[in-house]
Amino acid sequence: MKMNDYIKLVDRKLDEYIQIETPENLFKSMKYTVTLPGKRLRPVMCLEICRILGGKTEDALPTACAIEMLHAQTLIHDDLPCMDNDDFRRGKPTNHKVFGEAIATLAGDALLTYAPQIITKYSNNLAPETIVKILNEYFNYAGARGVIGGQVADIESEGNLDNIQNKQEVLEFIHIHKTSDLFQLSMRTGAIIAGANEEKLNAITDFAKKFGLAFQIADDILDEISTFEQMGKTLGKDKQSGKLTYVSLYGLDDAKCKLACTLKECRDIIEKQNIESEIFEDIIQKIQKGAEI
Amino acid sequence: MKMNDYIKLVDRKLDEYIQIETPENLFKSMKYTVTLPGKRLRPVMCLEICRILGGKTEDALPTACAIEMLHAQTLIHDDLPCMDNDDFRRGKPTNHKVFGEAIATLAGDALLTYAPQIITKYSNNLAPETIVKILNEYFNYAGARGVIGGQVADIESEGNLDNIQNKQEVLEFIHIHKTSDLFQLSMRTGAIIAGANEEKLNAITDFAKKFGLAFQIADDILDEISTFEQMGKTLGKDKQSGKLTYVSLYGLDDAKCKLACTLKECRDIIEKQNIESEIFEDIIQKIQKGAEI
Repeated sequence: MKMNDYIKLVDRKLDEYIQIETPENLFKSMKYTVTLPGKRLRPVMCLEICRILGGKTEDALPTACAIEMLHAQTLIHDDLPCMDNDDFRRGKPTNHKVFGEAIATLAGDALLTYAPQIITKYSNNLAPETIVKILNEYFNYAGARGVIGGQVADIESEGNLDNIQNKQEVLEFIHIHKTSDLFQLSMRTGAIIAGANEEKLNAITDFAKKFGLAFQIADDILDEISTFEQMGKTLGKDKQSGKLTYVSLYGLDDAKCKLACTLKECRDIIEKQNIESEIFEDIIQKIQKGAEI
Repeated sequence: MKMNDYIKLVDRKLDEYIQIETPENLFKSMKYTVTLPGKRLRPVMCLEICRILGGKTEDALPTACAIEMLHAQTLIHDDLPCMDNDDFRRGKPTNHKVFGEAIATLAGDALLTYAPQIITKYSNNLAPETIVKILNEYFNYAGARGVIGGQVADIESEGNLDNIQNKQEVLEFIHIHKTSDLFQLSMRTGAIIAGANEEKLNAITDFAKKFGLAFQIADDILDEISTFEQMGKTLGKDKQSGKLTYVSLYGLDDAKCKLACTLKECRDIIEKQNIESEIFEDIIQKIQKGAEI
C-alpha cells in the first residue's frame, strides 16, 4: 500500500470509530481533533511494520487508529491554556478554542479510554493474550512513564533553563518520552500483532526511538525557521517561552547535524534488519528535507 | 472482613502501587489525591461483592484499587478551575492548588492509564479473557459513555437551568453517569472476578445503579444542609452556580423522600438475591442517616 492509501484507510476508520453520541458536544470535541487532517505518521508506521513482518493490516488497524486518537489526546491537552496555551493546530482553532476548556479537558480524558476500547472492541482476530500485551504497551507509553512524563518534564523546563544542571539529560528525557514514545508504541504494537520475535522487536524499538528523536529535532528546527502558513500552528513559541529544545541547547547548526546523524542511524537499523519499505524511506526523506512533518 | 479492614488493605495497596518515579512531581501529584483519606466505598464494594459471590479478595484487589485511582482522577479534574473550581477536597487543598493546573491535569491523565495498568500488572490469577472483560468494563464506565459523559452533562446544565426542557431526564443522565457508573463498575467487576452468572450480574448492576443514585441524592442534600467542617469541601456551590441537582429540581423534602425510597429498593434487590452483608447494610444506613459519606 502507498502512503496515501494508508492515510485514506486510517481516516475512514477514525471517522467510523467515533460516532456522535450523547452528550453531543463531548463526542464532537473528541472527533474534531482526531479527524483534523494530518499525515497519520504513527498509524501508518504501525500498519507498515505489521505488513512488512507478515501481519495483516486489518488486525493492526484498530490499534493504529487508537494510537492516532491518543496522539490527538496529547494535542488537545498540550494546547490548553494551563499548558502551552496554543490557539491553532494544523491550521485550525485548537479544541478549547472551539469547545471551551472544560469540554476540551474532558474530551482528552475520554479519548484516553476510548482509544484502548477501540482495540478491545474491533481486534476480533487477536487472541486475548495478544490484546492484553497490546494494552500493556498502550498503558506504558501513554502514561506517566511515557508521553505524560515527557510533557511534565517539558513544562517544568520552561522558563527554568538557568536552573537545570543536567540539560542534555533532561532534553533527552523530554524528547524520548514526549515524542519517541508514541512512535515506539506504534511500531512495537504493529510488530507484536505480526508476531515479531524479541530480537526483531528490540531492533524496531531502537529504530522508533531514534526516529522519534529525529522527528523532534526537526520540529525544534521548524519552530525556529518556519512560518505559520507552512506549519498551521503558532511558531517561535519555544524560544519565546524559554523552552529546552535541541536548538536552544545546541544551536541551529548542531541541531541540523544531529538530525542528519540520527536519520542515518535509523536507516542503518532497518537496513541491518533487511526491512525494505518505500514508506519508511519517504518519511525519513521528508524529515531530512525539513519538509512539513 | 470488617469495613475498616478493607479500608486498611486498600490504603496499603494504593500506597504500594504508586511509587515516586521520575518526573517526581507527576507521581507525587497522582499519589496526593489517590491517598487522601477517604471511605474507599468503591473498592470496598468491589471486594465485598466478590467475597460474597465466592471470589478471592486478592484477585479483586488490583481492580478495586484501580477504581479508587479512577475516582481520584475524576476528583482532580472536576476540581480544576475550568470545571468546578474547588479549592478543598476532603479537608485538604485540591490537587491543582498544591501542584498547579498543568501538573494536576497531567496527573489526572496519567491515572487514566495507570489505573488499568495496575489491573493487568497485578491480576496474576485472572485469565487473559477475564482481564480483557474487566478492562472493557473499565473503558466503558470510565469514558465518554460513562463518568465523563456525566460530567459533561453536569457542566452543560450549570447556569443553564431555564433552557433545559427535559430537566428530569437530564438530571437522571447526570446522576447515573457521574455517580452510579463508578459503583456499577466496582460491583460488576467484583462480581465478574467471582465468576457471577448473567442473572446475578444484572441484579448487582441494578443495585449499584440505584445505590449510586441514592448516594448522589444524599450528596445533593448534604451540599444544601451541611457545613465545611463536616464535609471537608466547599458547600452550597451547587445552588450558587445554578446546578441541576435533586434538591434544585424537586426541593429538599422530595429529595429526602426519594433517597429513602431508593435505598429501600437497594435493600429489596440484595434481599431477593440472598445477599447478606453487614458492610452493605452499614453503608446504606450511613447514607440514610445523612452521615458524612
